[in-house]
Amino acid sequence: MLTLRRLAIDTFRENVAFLNRHCTVYRVEDFLGLGRVEVTGGGKAMLAVLNLVEDDAILGPGEIGLSTAAFRHLGLPEGARVAVEHPTPPRSFDLVRAKAGGATLSHADLAAVIRDVAAQRYSKIEIAAFLIACAAFMTTDEVLGLTRAMIDAGSRLTWDVGPIADKHCIGGVPGNRTSMIVVPIVAAHGLPIPKTSSRAITSPAGTADTMEVLANVDVGVERMQELVRTVKGCLVWGGHVNLSPADDVLISVERPLAVDTREQLVASILSKKAAAGSTNLLVDIPVGPTAKVRTQGEAVRLRKLFEYVGDQLGLTLDVAITDGSQPVGFGIGPVLEARDVMAVLRGEPAAPADLRESALRLAGRIIEFDPAVRGGSGYRRARDLLEGGEALRTMERIMERQGPPPAKATLGTLVHEVVAPKDGTVEAIDCYRIARIARLAGAPVDKGAGIDLLHKVGARVRRGEPLYRIHANTRPDFAFARTMAEEDAGIRVNGLGGAA
Amino acid sequence: MLTLRRLAIDTFRENVAFLNRHCTVYRVEDFLGLGRVEVTGGGKAMLAVLNLVEDDAILGPGEIGLSTAAFRHLGLPEGARVAVEHPTPPRSFDLVRAKAGGATLSHADLAAVIRDVAAQRYSKIEIAAFLIACAAFMTTDEVLGLTRAMIDAGSRLTWDVGPIADKHCIGGVPGNRTSMIVVPIVAAHGLPIPKTSSRAITSPAGTADTMEVLANVDVGVERMQELVRTVKGCLVWGGHVNLSPADDVLISVERPLAVDTREQLVASILSKKAAAGSTNLLVDIPVGPTAKVRTQGEAVRLRKLFEYVGDQLGLTLDVAITDGSQPVGFGIGPVLEARDVMAVLRGEPAAPADLRESALRLAGRIIEFDPAVRGGSGYRRARDLLEGGEALRTMERIMERQGPPPAKATLGTLVHEVVAPKDGTVEAIDCYRIARIARLAGAPVDKGAGIDLLHKVGARVRRGEPLYRIHANTRPDFAFARTMAEEDAGIRVNGLGGAA
Repeated sequence: MLTLRRLAIDTFRENVAFLNRHCTVYRVEDFLGLGRVEVTGGGKAMLAVLNLVEDDAILGPGEIGLSTAAFRHLGLPEGARVAVEHPTPPRSFDLVRAKAGGATLSHADLAAVIRDVAAQRYSKIEIAAFLIACAAFMTTDEVLGLTRAMIDAGSRLTWDVGPIADKHCIGGVPGNRTSMIVVPIVAAHGLPIPKTSSRAITSPAGTADTMEVLANVDVGVERMQELVRTVKGCLVWGGHVNLSPADDVLISVERPLAVDTREQLVASILSKKAAAGSTNLLVDIPVGPTAKVRTQGEAVRLRKLFEYVGDQLGLTLDVAITDGSQPVGFGIGPVLEARDVMAVLRGEPAAPADLRESALRLAGRIIEFDPAVRGGSGYRRARDLLEGGEALRTMERIMERQGPPPAKATLGTLVHEVVAPKDGTVEAIDCYRIARIARLAGAPVDKGAGIDLLHKVGARVRRGEPLYRIHANTRPDFAFARTMAEEDAGIRVNGLGGAA
Repeated sequence: MLTLRRLAIDTFRENVAFLNRHCTVYRVEDFLGLGRVEVTGGGKAMLAVLNLVEDDAILGPGEIGLSTAAFRHLGLPEGARVAVEHPTPPRSFDLVRAKAGGATLSHADLAAVIRDVAAQRYSKIEIAAFLIACAAFMTTDEVLGLTRAMIDAGSRLTWDVGPIADKHCIGGVPGNRTSMIVVPIVAAHGLPIPKTSSRAITSPAGTADTMEVLANVDVGVERMQELVRTVKGCLVWGGHVNLSPADDVLISVERPLAVDTREQLVASILSKKAAAGSTNLLVDIPVGPTAKVRTQGEAVRLRKLFEYVGDQLGLTLDVAITDGSQPVGFGIGPVLEARDVMAVLRGEPAAPADLRESALRLAGRIIEFDPAVRGGSGYRRARDLLEGGEALRTMERIMERQGPPPAKATLGTLVHEVVAPKDGTVEAIDCYRIARIARLAGAPVDKGAGIDLLHKVGARVRRGEPLYRIHANTRPDFAFARTMAEEDAGIRVNGLGGAA
């Protein structure tokens, strides 16, 4: 038997077992064929990818090391006696092979695959195989089966109040922080809306990052329940709500592969929302030439798939196709976006009109989920709640009850102005490019970093007039972002004279 | 800049970079989105998967560690100053995404993908994506393009003699060690046949493992050239001949996924053989209910694909569909198989007739490649060379010139006899099961371990009579193999009385 050790190496959702190349208990060569082992001990078993250590200082020849997540997953203490065996690959992988060969999988098949995925019995290459096999083609019934399987593979939240409203934006448009306005409006109306959000992964800010400028977002399920009872809403980080573990595993491979299919997107979002106990969901699909969804046709296909699967799951679902042609609001980056959100809630005259308008439309559609609301009056009700200050007061109560932010975030003091190259009109703002520059400036890790847009599409500008400001807090980030902006500022001015 | 360190961890053909979670040079969070980094320094650059170390004893906060192969691949010394950057994923991966979506790739597309694969710019999940996208469907022209791309991505051997014969068996049948008889016969005939073989990965013995019982197989290209000049043949391990690096990378992911497609098989084998400078190739496809190829129909489809691609590459190619219904010869495991081979070469009366016959047929077909040989007389010529002792003498010269084996291997002294459960006839021997038991007994790492079959299909046996012997050298292996054989011996006796 081997002695178990936690090796302080984070291998990101891949269970890795480390053996010394000169292992005194097993012939490691026996395990190299498949590159995996089954680790067993104390009645527990776990599949893990095998790495070999050639340095006794890292791991001794009678020891087995597990990566941090694998160690947690196995759940045995350091020093425990464990064995390794030839792995029994998950039987459900035969179904993935069949799918790769062109088969259609039944709901039961998909459930078997997803159960093994959720139990971390698939290695990353097996996950990749499943994703690509599904990317080739999936029937709508398979999408439904996959969504159901993902819901069933995790836990499910229940709420002791009636219908639960929720909202999800598929993302891709910087500054589009409508949730932080929609949630207080809808909660002020009285419709429970426990909103969980992610932190940014490849974008300059997620709702959780931005909300964290104003309040604590690291909130567990019990506190969420309490918030919904008292304030009807919350804006928290979703990390504590382990709702769709299979989805988390799939995403950890989908993201680096950047294989985004409509089918995976719908299954991912609807499984998470159904597991979160949401009953009435608004999905926001921004469309624009530099957004995630680039044409109306694409948006409509996506909408129909959302509707089909949502209906079958018994969700009340509404899909809003919105304008994603340029960033929403002025600020990009947590501190700047939080500023815009609060300006809208406070009714400040300088508040970004597009962010306000988009949030009101979305909030209005969610309010229409309420049977007591007269058809067509949702927008008006939303506007009244915003203009009357109820939304702001609800937001203040949410912030107060979630607690203060973990650290005070301030706007980056290193400032660079990107100016118009000529007189003319702002013709286009590239969402992708602007996000990239804001990220290089340090957002979202540095909450005060980002971009402050001074003009939006259609604005007339004079040569030399600032188009936007880059904010950063550290010199190297500042330099990276400036260099990137000098190569291509991501904003096109159309007019006479000078280069574009 | 970070200080480079070689971390003595073998991550098996995946470049892994390790950073301390509290890295003092970069914010590691910036790199977590894609999970990969581009490591640059001294004019070199390399993509690597990122793992985080949380223990300063393993890696300091100002250091970057590279897994053993990644360190070698980057080629900088320890202590070098390197930077990490956001990775630029290989551009060719867009083509893989297109293929996953149903596109057909051109030869130029496949060349772009395979160049990046060979340069280790693909992570394992990206390789898996490529393999699965190809598994869904591939045109024969794509198979040709893939094969050409794999040839072009590596180096190519040239020989200063005329036509170069070669032989490849697709495997799956234990004991099928014909190459060690075919090579000396063909070389004795005067046709150059520089045979490289692999070591066993999931089987109980590869030709390289078995030949190593008799001679050194760890031979470089120069020695191979010399062997071909002087003896016309060799039987060496292919590990020194880095012919199709892309194929090696693909196989490292294909194997654990166990996604074996005809298309990948043909591209893999023909690219390796073309790169090895072979001009006249015999491919052996054993067919049987427990072999790799299970039906004649499957074998014919595979044969046609070999023929199409081989013709387009300008190879002279012959495909033999042989009997893979049961193990070939008596011994399974390196020492036992070497014994069978030498018994055939020496013309011993007890030599396994099936191994001898199969080797003669294959050798005969290769000899027919020689324009000077009268059509239809290859088999006779092969038999004459075997019976006249020329083949044996050639084998002895090959052994002598390759040098003595690295260690003396002896037959396992722990012996267990598996007996017939009843009177009757041996009806079937399960190739897969027998291989598994031999492997558990210790083969091929323990060269003396394995199975010695005493009866083949069709033999009449009495209840209690031994069917085969398990040989092992160490107690735990012996116990494992016995337990496995007791569960299911892998040999079916048909007759009256008792359980099967």
